[in-house]
Amino acid sequence: MTTYDDPQSAEDAYYDAFDEHDIEMMMSVWDDSDETVCLLPMYPAIKGLAAIRQAFELLLHPESQFEIQVKHLHWIQTDTLAIHLVEESVKTPGAPNQSVYATNVYQKKAQGSWHMTMHQNSPVPMPPPAE
Amino acid sequence: MTTYDDPQSAEDAYYDAFDEHDIEMMMSVWDDSDETVCLLPMYPAIKGLAAIRQAFELLLHPESQFEIQVKHLHWIQTDTLAIHLVEESVKTPGAPNQSVYATNVYQKKAQGSWHMTMHQNSPVPMPPPAE
Repeated sequence: MTTYDDPQSAEDAYYDAFDEHDIEMMMSVWDDSDETVCLLPMYPAIKGLAAIRQAFELLLHPESQFEIQVKHLHWIQTDTLAIHLVEESVKTPGAPNQSVYATNVYQKKAQGSWHMTMHQNSPVPMPPPAE
Repeated sequence: MTTYDDPQSAEDAYYDAFDEHDIEMMMSVWDDSDETVCLLPMYPAIKGLAAIRQAFELLLHPESQFEIQVKHLHWIQTDTLAIHLVEESVKTPGAPNQSVYATNVYQKKAQGSWHMTMHQNSPVPMPPPAE
């Protein structure tokens, strides 16, 4: 099992897994618990690793073309729980860039490894109309 | 200054403030920090108490008619940090009910009082089309 020594290592792997279309790297980031939950825009809450794997197999499909750039907006961290609020800028060839806010929550688990226990996306405002 | 002995007391006051259109009760819930952040759907991130007050003065306007019912989906809590994932069902007279997911993050501050340090809403799926 992959261990992540701090929340940022887990977060780096989460976004690298998108770049590399690597579902096993992606799944190594998520906490293996029935309580683990993922909220993608307009999707029902996705709970537990099996359902999360199914959703991310679609997102990480080898023909998925999008890239995600991440800007950190706010961090909160205690000894065992970390919350990273980021802005994800999603670039898809031939489509306008889209930005979403994401809250990534990590917990320190057995063996001191940090894993994602919650992820929530929400839309940012529409860009102003062209003049 | 109002103190909240646990995250749930702060959360109860947050939703009561909507029912009672009480901006001072609402502001007593939020942590008084420049880092406090509120993410409403399609709004830019609202940071700091002054900006949050401005946004909630609009939402809690005496003529606002909506009611919010809350269903808890998931809780994570440590000694000083708590995350409540809820589904908010928003009822507005004459309009279809709307549901949104909300993540409410509370921190235990000085004097042991819990305050909201982050709030994020995101849309739930559209209801299935009528047959």
